[in-house]
Amino acid sequence: MTSARTPYYLDCDTGIDDALAIAYLLAAAAQPDSGVDIVGIGSVSGNVSAAMGASNTLDLLALAGRSDIPVAVGAHHPKVGEFRGGAPHVHGENGIGNVELERSAASAVSESAAEMLVRLAHKHAGELRVIAVGPLTNIADALHLDPTLPGLVKELTIMGGAALVPGNITAVAEANIANDADAASDVFAADWFITLVPLDVTMPNVFLEEHRAALIRSGRPVASALGHMLDHYFEFYVGVYGHRASALHDPLAVAVALGDLALKSAPVVRVVVDTTDGPGRGQTVCDLRGMYNGYPEQSGAHTRVVLSLEDDFAPTLLARLLVA
Amino acid sequence: MTSARTPYYLDCDTGIDDALAIAYLLAAAAQPDSGVDIVGIGSVSGNVSAAMGASNTLDLLALAGRSDIPVAVGAHHPKVGEFRGGAPHVHGENGIGNVELERSAASAVSESAAEMLVRLAHKHAGELRVIAVGPLTNIADALHLDPTLPGLVKELTIMGGAALVPGNITAVAEANIANDADAASDVFAADWFITLVPLDVTMPNVFLEEHRAALIRSGRPVASALGHMLDHYFEFYVGVYGHRASALHDPLAVAVALGDLALKSAPVVRVVVDTTDGPGRGQTVCDLRGMYNGYPEQSGAHTRVVLSLEDDFAPTLLARLLVA
Repeated sequence: MTSARTPYYLDCDTGIDDALAIAYLLAAAAQPDSGVDIVGIGSVSGNVSAAMGASNTLDLLALAGRSDIPVAVGAHHPKVGEFRGGAPHVHGENGIGNVELERSAASAVSESAAEMLVRLAHKHAGELRVIAVGPLTNIADALHLDPTLPGLVKELTIMGGAALVPGNITAVAEANIANDADAASDVFAADWFITLVPLDVTMPNVFLEEHRAALIRSGRPVASALGHMLDHYFEFYVGVYGHRASALHDPLAVAVALGDLALKSAPVVRVVVDTTDGPGRGQTVCDLRGMYNGYPEQSGAHTRVVLSLEDDFAPTLLARLLVA
Repeated sequence: MTSARTPYYLDCDTGIDDALAIAYLLAAAAQPDSGVDIVGIGSVSGNVSAAMGASNTLDLLALAGRSDIPVAVGAHHPKVGEFRGGAPHVHGENGIGNVELERSAASAVSESAAEMLVRLAHKHAGELRVIAVGPLTNIADALHLDPTLPGLVKELTIMGGAALVPGNITAVAEANIANDADAASDVFAADWFITLVPLDVTMPNVFLEEHRAALIRSGRPVASALGHMLDHYFEFYVGVYGHRASALHDPLAVAVALGDLALKSAPVVRVVVDTTDGPGRGQTVCDLRGMYNGYPEQSGAHTRVVLSLEDDFAPTLLARLLVA
């Protein structure tokens, strides 16, 4: 049986906003006549360890009745140095806001996330869409395993970095990129078309208490669980926004990858990642000097940097999640 | 004879927009009951060599009838490395758009710019305002000559850097800072109150053909000379803005230093300069993570970063220059 659907591989460090991203992708795939085929999910250390991320992912998939989707455990340590324990102050001790999901009966597959990605890229050569919403360790590992990967992947969408706004882990660096700056540098240097979804768009697009309440009120298993997880996430963001809210980092990247959103400003420019030990380490250095002149074409540029959207993302996300 | 006027020392690399800055400062000082006392001007290599910058400054002062203001030649080379020849493609071969001014009969003083700054800081202890609109080599040299300098200077206003906009010499670095990143690093690390006037405000504030025409039409010697200089500057900026215009970098810093402008957003935050050899070299890394929450106070922060103005600067500048 052949399928006209588009194959997607998701790489994540689940994580509360990763859970939102997974739920968004599942909801899209569940639509009648959906063009979305989720062919695999890999985990990586970031918000939580790669092992915990895979476990959370499996439990979410079970809750959604999609235990058929293969989950692979990815890299525990970044390319250089060691995993530092994640962000329990943001995502809770268990990564999903200390909400206890029923444990899935399914297990992770035996291949690594990088191996799975390479295999899927060959199986769906020229068609596979990759969405990476965690540190880019697995993607860099896959590039190392098979340098022909960029020619096999149709598009790579990355949640990470900051272009014309501050970082969230240093003044200029965003957590996904900074957690493995060396891997990120390799990924941006490789010759594939990347769509970068940075803090520029993910910070101004937020869920508020009304959205969280609607998720819980829905009574639907996944939506309700997400609503409870967001309680923890909202508390962290009080220190950022001055009120309870959550940035919509990872689901926004999925929505962009699916083509669900109208992009207002998204120039294709050169991007390099700072791998020095200076104050810019982990920064996505995007060459946006053309901003005053409509972003003239840059030779060698292969990254589309999403700087703004036409519409607020929250209603789109909520509508999707309410049928998750 | 005592004076109630405020002493200003200007450090510059004259340069077309430096010429606008000097003219603005001269016009302010020429007002009846002016509080502005220009006690010295130092030159530094940047747009042009320090020697050429001093020469241009002297000629401008002569044209304005202010050859009494002492001009000191400053550092030719940056703290590390060598002066690379300036920016003749921006400012013309002679630094002032190839306009030929009558040579001043005055000469530069025998002390260096750094020596002059230290001397003036002691003479006007606690009162001296320093405005630096070129690379920060002289200011760093003065700090080295006398580490007590920060306690003597009332305020240091710097045109340079980029906070939430791209750089103009690399993707993230502005020319003044990047031309001597090591000196800039020393200056921002020293314990004085700095007002930084970065590209965030100087790029959106421009002179257009109508302003240039008004300067020339005035028939006044300085204003008219500036109008002719701007012809060259406007041509360079076609590649940036897509039309003839000029950014108002240096005069904007002078206007901020004089308190002439209402600042819309100007948080006091930590700033460090990237001195690595990575892609961020020369970047002013401003910690603006508080932007979503009204910029809560940061311990150790001593730099006010001017991000936006209440009003367009061009009319204010033009009005000043028309009486220059």
